[in-house]
Amino acid sequence: MVKRVWVIGIGPGGIDQVTVAAIRALNRVEVFLVPDKGAAKHDLVALREQICATYIDHDYRIIEVPDPERGPDAERSADQYAGGVRDWHRARADRYAELLTGLPEADAGFLVWGDPAFYDSTLRILDTLQADGLEFEVTVVPGISAIQLLAGEHRTVLNRIGQPIHITTGRRLVADYRAYGSDLGDLVVMLDGALTCRELRAEPLEIFWGAYLGAPEQVLRRGRLDAVIDEIVDLRARLRAAHGWIMDTYLLRPITPAGPTP
Amino acid sequence: MVKRVWVIGIGPGGIDQVTVAAIRALNRVEVFLVPDKGAAKHDLVALREQICATYIDHDYRIIEVPDPERGPDAERSADQYAGGVRDWHRARADRYAELLTGLPEADAGFLVWGDPAFYDSTLRILDTLQADGLEFEVTVVPGISAIQLLAGEHRTVLNRIGQPIHITTGRRLVADYRAYGSDLGDLVVMLDGALTCRELRAEPLEIFWGAYLGAPEQVLRRGRLDAVIDEIVDLRARLRAAHGWIMDTYLLRPITPAGPTP
Repeated sequence: MVKRVWVIGIGPGGIDQVTVAAIRALNRVEVFLVPDKGAAKHDLVALREQICATYIDHDYRIIEVPDPERGPDAERSADQYAGGVRDWHRARADRYAELLTGLPEADAGFLVWGDPAFYDSTLRILDTLQADGLEFEVTVVPGISAIQLLAGEHRTVLNRIGQPIHITTGRRLVADYRAYGSDLGDLVVMLDGALTCRELRAEPLEIFWGAYLGAPEQVLRRGRLDAVIDEIVDLRARLRAAHGWIMDTYLLRPITPAGPTP
Repeated sequence: MVKRVWVIGIGPGGIDQVTVAAIRALNRVEVFLVPDKGAAKHDLVALREQICATYIDHDYRIIEVPDPERGPDAERSADQYAGGVRDWHRARADRYAELLTGLPEADAGFLVWGDPAFYDSTLRILDTLQADGLEFEVTVVPGISAIQLLAGEHRTVLNRIGQPIHITTGRRLVADYRAYGSDLGDLVVMLDGALTCRELRAEPLEIFWGAYLGAPEQVLRRGRLDAVIDEIVDLRARLRAAHGWIMDTYLLRPITPAGPTP
């Protein structure tokens, strides 16, 4: 019977973004439950296996859990989107409930890309299982998120002095920026497969973009949004075609009267 | 002559929040430049030394750099505040410029609590030095920030499904929340020595608070803001008196009609 579930952030890519606390946690886990998203993200599966092989000293097993299908999100309203995500969490929770109750191991683990605190569903699914009556402890180990590596590789700070940082998704970006403008501070955009910042090209914004952060394939671009967005859109499409997948994120920074960041 | 400056995030406290990449970077640095903030944060100095002693295999030295005085911020406007911070960066930059040009070592390093990308001045000061004509490369190594450990220790995700995360400071919190409300998403508040969220006690908010995150002294509290804020204010004052210092941060989450997070 599983008594403890470890939710371990393993960073955005690259085996050296793992913390000492994460390595210790990896070595407590007897069985890893890993969503199987099909063959598309082959490089990521290999990287995950490399992290386990590099840092774990004992025997463990990995169970691949087929991920429930998700319908298309693009045309949905925010409420429909949240409802769709909840249905999908429910379907996932049912699969994990069945698995967890049948395991002989005491310590199960989930590996999370980046950090479990940013736009990840693992903790919500575990909340659902506990609300359903399953009894286990949860330990969370933070990991470096893609946005931290984005900032670090661009050698910049995410906030301007005394100003906020607004982390949002591609689906909300344009409406929120049009409503609140630079009052939101520096904008970090996650989960934006469509580079919706294209629609803001007329605005005084600087973009800091990064893909495959932390991996050997890492690519960075920065500049005034209107000057570089077409190149980034094109580059993203080519990289995605070449690798078969892409993970990217970006920062939009309001350009102040003094000009863009040096 | 210094040729490379390493800016290394060492996490929010606790020696096991350091990444493998950070350990590798620590071992490249020959001289660490460390702001000397006086005796007040004695525990932090000891922890920093423990991190170096634990992970560094070679000889290095630490130079303590007296920090310029900063005037009181509390009564200043946002513009005066930013100006005050810039003056203080300028004074710090002058001290570091003098030091860096006189060092015989090639690799200098700065240790940053948490992550260099969130509300830290090191990269801005290095930008100033480079703009002044000093020539050196900068490498940034991300670290776990206090807000990630806050979320992890509370076993929660920083965002609601599809909603933004707004990271702000105590000085902006109340005005921004009154202007934009729950449109900002979950609110993460940093640099708030006054727990200004007290002024929002009538609002439908849940607070997740943490102090000394990652250290043995760690303290957590959560609950409806109106129900727990007085206890947190009192507890914070007692902890600060007992330790001589405190570092804390918190998350404010809008309570939806369905009730607070389970």
